[in-house]
Amino acid sequence: MEQHASDTSAHQPLTLLGLGAMGTALARAWLAARHPLTVWNRSQHRAAPLAAEGATVAGTAAEAVAASRLVVVCLLDDESVRQTLADTDLTGRDVVNLSTGTPGQARALARWVEDRGARFLDGGIMAVPPMIGVPDSGGYILYSGSTDAFEAYRHTLAVPAGTRYVGADPGFAALHDVALLSAMTGMFSGIAHAFALIRREEIAPKEFAPLLAEWLAAMAGSAHLTAAQLESGDHTTGVASNLAMMVTANATLLRTAEEQGVSTELLTPYTGLMADVRPAGQGAESHPGGVDLLLR
Amino acid sequence: MEQHASDTSAHQPLTLLGLGAMGTALARAWLAARHPLTVWNRSQHRAAPLAAEGATVAGTAAEAVAASRLVVVCLLDDESVRQTLADTDLTGRDVVNLSTGTPGQARALARWVEDRGARFLDGGIMAVPPMIGVPDSGGYILYSGSTDAFEAYRHTLAVPAGTRYVGADPGFAALHDVALLSAMTGMFSGIAHAFALIRREEIAPKEFAPLLAEWLAAMAGSAHLTAAQLESGDHTTGVASNLAMMVTANATLLRTAEEQGVSTELLTPYTGLMADVRPAGQGAESHPGGVDLLLR
Repeated sequence: MEQHASDTSAHQPLTLLGLGAMGTALARAWLAARHPLTVWNRSQHRAAPLAAEGATVAGTAAEAVAASRLVVVCLLDDESVRQTLADTDLTGRDVVNLSTGTPGQARALARWVEDRGARFLDGGIMAVPPMIGVPDSGGYILYSGSTDAFEAYRHTLAVPAGTRYVGADPGFAALHDVALLSAMTGMFSGIAHAFALIRREEIAPKEFAPLLAEWLAAMAGSAHLTAAQLESGDHTTGVASNLAMMVTANATLLRTAEEQGVSTELLTPYTGLMADVRPAGQGAESHPGGVDLLLR
Repeated sequence: MEQHASDTSAHQPLTLLGLGAMGTALARAWLAARHPLTVWNRSQHRAAPLAAEGATVAGTAAEAVAASRLVVVCLLDDESVRQTLADTDLTGRDVVNLSTGTPGQARALARWVEDRGARFLDGGIMAVPPMIGVPDSGGYILYSGSTDAFEAYRHTLAVPAGTRYVGADPGFAALHDVALLSAMTGMFSGIAHAFALIRREEIAPKEFAPLLAEWLAAMAGSAHLTAAQLESGDHTTGVASNLAMMVTANATLLRTAEEQGVSTELLTPYTGLMADVRPAGQGAESHPGGVDLLLR
């Protein structure tokens, strides 16, 4: 049943360990694309519906790993991955870890897996389960680690969602994943503060939301400006930026929060960081300096 | 020289007080559209180039206000506006304040101006000076206050940038302005943290920026979900959201920051807020609860 890793057939067999909401969505995507799929989950009841859809259910993780050269792991965390793979024979396998973890965990897991005779790819899933297997959902999976393994399986890996290979360093997928989620966390904190500001006013959230979504989408492009300034080291000149507008407006933002009875707790870490930057004389284009002030 | 306020001629005369970077950009936009323009600035040297371009330069703010029924004010802050208008006769004028301020300042200024016999509009400029007078720049000006005044001048006000009228409450333009800028501040803090995470790695900022800009632009739409949940009061059901992905990932985000030697100062206020929400049992769809936790 095992196929050679360089086979790019649309029906490459594979094994999937872990059938949480994301694992189940991945399984359904591969089954729908008619890939022979062996599944295993610690709580076996989650595998039953997939068996009815054509999956082979393995009784143990070891049996599941033995069934296919390509082994995809989608478990709760790094600890679960280690525990689950500990009793399996990874010799000659290609392990793709889609479990959430840090770059350091991915790098250590890569060594651990490679020491057991397998190739390793780490993935960061930039999607929620309902986006898996849906063409043009906007979701995608970041991959890093073995370039050969990625090339061998790129068609199979592209079944659940688009793929983006970000480097041979096995920690890079998790690093990109966490960096994107961290930036989103910042945006969500801004969204929460914005809605809090209008919460007690006669402004319908649904009328404000389009303005807010449009504004943030337009301003997301400032990431390009930050990158250009980080690369050039020139933080004082360049195109007039929206950052200038922000920095000069900080006092008004804080005062308005107080007027509206809204905590400033989500604003002050960044306005404070900007205040730390400005005395260095970098002026309004000093956002990239804020980046380096975060380094410890 | 004065025209009736209901005249929607493309060449309506107006007065502009304040010639900083933004005021100068506004002046040039109206001059380019052949509006008779009277300008005044405390430091007169800033008016000279505009005189060469066709503006009439007034010697005092009182003379400038006397020259046109429509008086646009673009000064440093609320205090400057009060001081400048104090010695002018506002009877029968229509005052449009584009100076930065809080909603409370705008409401108080509206009363102050109306007590002196003028109509009042407040504006929040969602653009930087280079975007003024540039078609399709993406910049626009929020307006609130006298509906009649807005209708009377909508064509003239649309010359420098697109207009969005957000209500008769004179504080609403500033409130929308500050809410949008506050949300942007959150997004910028996320962008700074994301770049800090990759700063010491072999990842070029310019290669990471497109991923980041694209991701944030796609996730900006979550403002619609937050609005829907705030309006329905239903924080526990609804479409599976990217918020679920974020909340469960918080521990990984914090641990990765520590691994990468990056301060968690920009992340912890929001991850802490989320932690405060979750014990209330609202689960992963609890982002709107975070909004109400900010209210004091």
